[in-house]
Amino acid sequence: MTRETVRVEAFSDGVFAIAITLLILEIRVPHLPTEAGNAELGAALRTLWPSFLAFAGTFGSILTMWINHHGFFDLLERVDRRFLFANGFLLLLITFVPFPTALLAAYLDRPGANAASAFYCATYVGINVAYNLLWLTAARDHRLIRPGVSDKVLERIRRAYLLGFPIYVLAVVAAFWNAMLGFGICSALWIFWAGLDYRDRHAQPAAA
Amino acid sequence: MTRETVRVEAFSDGVFAIAITLLILEIRVPHLPTEAGNAELGAALRTLWPSFLAFAGTFGSILTMWINHHGFFDLLERVDRRFLFANGFLLLLITFVPFPTALLAAYLDRPGANAASAFYCATYVGINVAYNLLWLTAARDHRLIRPGVSDKVLERIRRAYLLGFPIYVLAVVAAFWNAMLGFGICSALWIFWAGLDYRDRHAQPAAA
Amino acid sequence: MTRETVRVEAFSDGVFAIAITLLILEIRVPHLPTEAGNAELGAALRTLWPSFLAFAGTFGSILTMWINHHGFFDLLERVDRRFLFANGFLLLLITFVPFPTALLAAYLDRPGANAASAFYCATYVGINVAYNLLWLTAARDHRLIRPGVSDKVLERIRRAYLLGFPIYVLAVVAAFWNAMLGFGICSALWIFWAGLDYRDRHAQPAAA
Amino acid sequence: MTRETVRVEAFSDGVFAIAITLLILEIRVPHLPTEAGNAELGAALRTLWPSFLAFAGTFGSILTMWINHHGFFDLLERVDRRFLFANGFLLLLITFVPFPTALLAAYLDRPGANAASAFYCATYVGINVAYNLLWLTAARDHRLIRPGVSDKVLERIRRAYLLGFPIYVLAVVAAFWNAMLGFGICSALWIFWAGLDYRDRHAQPAAA
Repeated sequence: MTRETVRVEAFSDGVFAIAITLLILEIRVPHLPTEAGNAELGAALRTLWPSFLAFAGTFGSILTMWINHHGFFDLLERVDRRFLFANGFLLLLITFVPFPTALLAAYLDRPGANAASAFYCATYVGINVAYNLLWLTAARDHRLIRPGVSDKVLERIRRAYLLGFPIYVLAVVAAFWNAMLGFGICSALWIFWAGLDYRDRHAQPAAA
Repeated sequence: MTRETVRVEAFSDGVFAIAITLLILEIRVPHLPTEAGNAELGAALRTLWPSFLAFAGTFGSILTMWINHHGFFDLLERVDRRFLFANGFLLLLITFVPFPTALLAAYLDRPGANAASAFYCATYVGINVAYNLLWLTAARDHRLIRPGVSDKVLERIRRAYLLGFPIYVLAVVAAFWNAMLGFGICSALWIFWAGLDYRDRHAQPAAA
Repeated sequence: MTRETVRVEAFSDGVFAIAITLLILEIRVPHLPTEAGNAELGAALRTLWPSFLAFAGTFGSILTMWINHHGFFDLLERVDRRFLFANGFLLLLITFVPFPTALLAAYLDRPGANAASAFYCATYVGINVAYNLLWLTAARDHRLIRPGVSDKVLERIRRAYLLGFPIYVLAVVAAFWNAMLGFGICSALWIFWAGLDYRDRHAQPAAA
Repeated sequence: MTRETVRVEAFSDGVFAIAITLLILEIRVPHLPTEAGNAELGAALRTLWPSFLAFAGTFGSILTMWINHHGFFDLLERVDRRFLFANGFLLLLITFVPFPTALLAAYLDRPGANAASAFYCATYVGINVAYNLLWLTAARDHRLIRPGVSDKVLERIRRAYLLGFPIYVLAVVAAFWNAMLGFGICSALWIFWAGLDYRDRHAQPAAA
């Protein structure tokens, strides 16, 4: 891995770490009248459930995206300009995530929930496109891939990334029918991504 | 220590550093009428004491958690998926901490103080559970531990983590009786955690 | 590259990564009446277009500045105090960027758009000056440049940095005539900066 | 330098970088009536001068504190628990700085300016105490200092840190007389700190 690659990875890590930590700033302390007691505060905290849910679900998603980002970088021999643009597009969307998360938290228990959830899911469609662009600029014809990485691994990753696209689009559609369902699909997918394997040695037992 | 381990530790460090620095954003500059003079501003700053107290106490707690996190990582030979989930759960709670801190600061001198303090302490119960999960996924049967780390060290850490659980639960209960007491127990414990030793060479003189 | 140089670069990277991630905090979730439905929320999101545009344009600009910053650091043998001041001045302006971005987002579709856009563009004039100061303190007479870097490379960088100055000044002027044009010039320039080459090996084919 | 020392330094760097970048969040975009034009927005931006001044002055101060922090760490052979507490106290105050900065920005052109400025300067007294504690825990009797660092260097640093204390106390007092003067003293001192030399080779020509 070149010095340049290490550096781009470190910068990306920083952006992931900051974006994931900024999520909490969107949960606001309830403003209650001065005389409000423990019961009122407890009730007010319970009404924050959409914020807690959006926070936890999105945290899991970004963390899994970071793990996948690292898995992908491990395959790289070097980076070039075209790849830097694709990676930059991914980082743009990662830093954007706190906004749809806050939107979802604010509207999940209100009439505008479908629009908020669809917007949230649409952001994930964009992120999926960015991962597919990473693959296209780096892994196609093994362009930037280090020697020794098998076709099998690259093909497995390509399929997973491609498969993600229709599922996230489905989540956008589902959000219009049921806001919670759209969010649920996006959040559930992190279990799928967490299971994606970027290493050859795991591929072999699986193929055996 | 593998490249993977170093990387997870660096990412976790970033999250700790950002979470600890975001705490200050919850202390708001007092809004006073334009003609308010030095005396009024001084008085307004004094009424911010719950914010300053919550900031300082939580800063000490997160800093000590970071020191313990590093101490634990020093024992590791490698990481695996199960450990990554446990560590991810810990990071989720660390990034969450600014919210209960802001809540405590807003309600510590008001009738809802008990609920706010109990919520704050409950977050620490969760963090303690996360540390116990780190131990279970990494240290049980020396699964991910590097050679040469003695049973004695792992056992000492296990006991400290387990002991933390009832104390933090006690803090939640105490918070319902006296808000300041709950917060005080959580904050005082960082002296206990700061004293926890992750190294063998210290264990020997202690046993001598 | 000395340990000192690596350290200054790492600190600068952190500042770039944080500034680029803070941009999103300036996009606020729309506050609508509780009964507002999907159509109203959709409409409210569409009125946020100046925020989305300012976010995306500025993200691209800061990312390209970071790439250029790294390209420049790759030429360095060491750093000295004078260079640290120039670099500190650049970081001051980079951390400042979220403010003019938020200003532009708030006023781009309102009567004050020209003033907001001119202020935004003026920040980029300042950043351009900072890059020229980096060149002057480091590259003039090869002061802090590592051996083997050709005059041709340094001269190419100098010209690009100098050329940026009148263009950004032009953007300030253009902003008073058409707010979007000023912002457009600043944002379009990142394609120019992304194409600036800091390496000798690319220079040779270009010269052949 | 031990792995532990490198790690504490990296964590501290992260806290410095985040604190310095968060400063900008305290400058708020002016809220004007929708019909406000360029002239009104220009005027509103000019009334933000205390924010810009506090931002620039504090940025320079934190950047210089970071440079000094690194200079000091370069002298270290290792760290121990006592030093970690002193360093943690310093970091607590560094993360605190955005609050007094926002306070100063909000009140510098209002009747409460003296109180705000004195509070700001008092934070710097605290930071100076923290640097003196760093010296006491690390440099006294060369406790944690690496071999080859001369008494002369340590003595020079000790004197500079000690000298800072009465000057910052003076700034607090001066702030009660003239708010701008207190802030000015604190900000001007960064030129003094930027000139403090942590290396032996510079000491010798100075002594020659």
